[in-house]
Amino acid sequence: MREDLARVDQVILANIDSGVPLIPKLARHIIAAGGKRLRPALTLLSAKLCGYSGQRHIHLAACVEFIHTATLLHDDVVDESVLRRGNATANDVWGNKASVLVGDFLLSRAFQLMVSDGSLQVLKILSDASAVIAQGEVLQLSTANNPETTQEQYLEVITAKTATLFSAACELGAVVSERHEEEERLRKAGLDLGIAFQIMDDALDYAASQATLGKTVGDDFREGKITLPVIFAYERGNAKEQAFWKRTLEAQDMRDGDLDHAIDIINKHQSISESIALAETYCDSARAQLAHFPAGAEKDALLETIDFCTQRAY
Amino acid sequence: MREDLARVDQVILANIDSGVPLIPKLARHIIAAGGKRLRPALTLLSAKLCGYSGQRHIHLAACVEFIHTATLLHDDVVDESVLRRGNATANDVWGNKASVLVGDFLLSRAFQLMVSDGSLQVLKILSDASAVIAQGEVLQLSTANNPETTQEQYLEVITAKTATLFSAACELGAVVSERHEEEERLRKAGLDLGIAFQIMDDALDYAASQATLGKTVGDDFREGKITLPVIFAYERGNAKEQAFWKRTLEAQDMRDGDLDHAIDIINKHQSISESIALAETYCDSARAQLAHFPAGAEKDALLETIDFCTQRAY
Repeated sequence: MREDLARVDQVILANIDSGVPLIPKLARHIIAAGGKRLRPALTLLSAKLCGYSGQRHIHLAACVEFIHTATLLHDDVVDESVLRRGNATANDVWGNKASVLVGDFLLSRAFQLMVSDGSLQVLKILSDASAVIAQGEVLQLSTANNPETTQEQYLEVITAKTATLFSAACELGAVVSERHEEEERLRKAGLDLGIAFQIMDDALDYAASQATLGKTVGDDFREGKITLPVIFAYERGNAKEQAFWKRTLEAQDMRDGDLDHAIDIINKHQSISESIALAETYCDSARAQLAHFPAGAEKDALLETIDFCTQRAY
Repeated sequence: MREDLARVDQVILANIDSGVPLIPKLARHIIAAGGKRLRPALTLLSAKLCGYSGQRHIHLAACVEFIHTATLLHDDVVDESVLRRGNATANDVWGNKASVLVGDFLLSRAFQLMVSDGSLQVLKILSDASAVIAQGEVLQLSTANNPETTQEQYLEVITAKTATLFSAACELGAVVSERHEEEERLRKAGLDLGIAFQIMDDALDYAASQATLGKTVGDDFREGKITLPVIFAYERGNAKEQAFWKRTLEAQDMRDGDLDHAIDIINKHQSISESIALAETYCDSARAQLAHFPAGAEKDALLETIDFCTQRAY
């Protein structure tokens, strides 16, 4: 698995090369800066879980990481973020223009890699995923600054923008192995894991310490992004608390001490622990999909990935 | 041909539909606002020129327009433009975030349409084009604000960012018709036409009247974009003129009257007429590629498109 991931990195590095020097420079900054490679790992593990012994999973894992990276670059522009994984974001270093255009390049390069792979089924899975991700991002934009966003709307956003790629990453493992009877099971496992992952990510934005998070604590709050901790706290809040959320998130009138106060209200309503509890139910559902597969190193690694999701340090 | 274009529009409108209302709203604004549909028309005409009688050219023409529109949305964000085709740009109305994300959606949707078409050759042509376009846009960013950019570098930028899609649009006509012996000829005709088109577009940015241009005259100048009129004027300019270009384009120190002065220097060195002359040589080359095809309505329409390129009202 470590070897396979190293080969995915080789494919990634070979394919961000370009006659235009800014492209590998910027792409290397975000790709090579030590991401978790969670999504490509899902493709590799799913393929091995299905008994795959070829090489296609390496290239498809690289495609998945390219699509993810393109999304990250555009996300950071959209969110005006300055920190990612503890480093300055590409948009902060090279400007928004370069981030938008290099993101376009990486998405196109992902499709070129898929075309080399030559499977229309793979192309369908990943082009569908890519369109759904973009729709999820636009939907998230539409719910921004509205603290009356429901849990259902929130789940719709994170399913589209995050879980869809986890789902596709897992499904590809069954596809390359030609184990069509496992496609739906792995697709569902990836979807549940992705939902759990994003719920935890959003909880950590209010609950993590700055040192471990690798991005700025409270980014979502400052941007007026509506995530599960806020939705729980708003639903359960008294009139004074709801007015606070409306002033800060909706009217974007931010004052000193507001983030600390937001965290206090969130904790008062157990919004973090309830977020984690909801994430756990999705993890359980993902584990249930895997129950069917035979025991072994790949299954253990996938189960560890699911565990990691709700047990990330914060 | 008018019927075919109307059907392309139907395919476009059907495919910008989405459960997320902002997507069709924004996409309609830019797609339905009366673009010239020049690139999809090239696919339709090239297919007919090769004797094609099926329906795939309609869908592929829509793909080409989607890729073009995604590029426009991201371009307008990158250039901070406020006017396109005489209307407010999408980024000016809905903000940069929505434009970036809807652009991503349209590019993904283009790939979904290609996957439905089912040809790996088509997917290769358009995913290659899409990657080259993004590289051209990044290269353009690297030459910005440098008045010492050479004509060769300029041609490299516009070939990648503009001519590649014209070229792919024409090549697809031969591909769907399975006239493989015509692929290279139509590819080359499209490439030459695209280069001529962009040279003219860049000349018009200094030479057109505000009323006919549909965008703001002098946008390129204000952004410090280095285009052919500037390259000619800089090469031939005296020390005082070169200092003017360095102050305005490189140092971005813009003062009242600078655009008028820039136009005066450009005219003094016949930079517009020489740009048009260079565009004409590319038009001639495109016409030469078509000489080989039999006479008929499609060939006439393609030749008219080439004529239109250098005879656009300004």
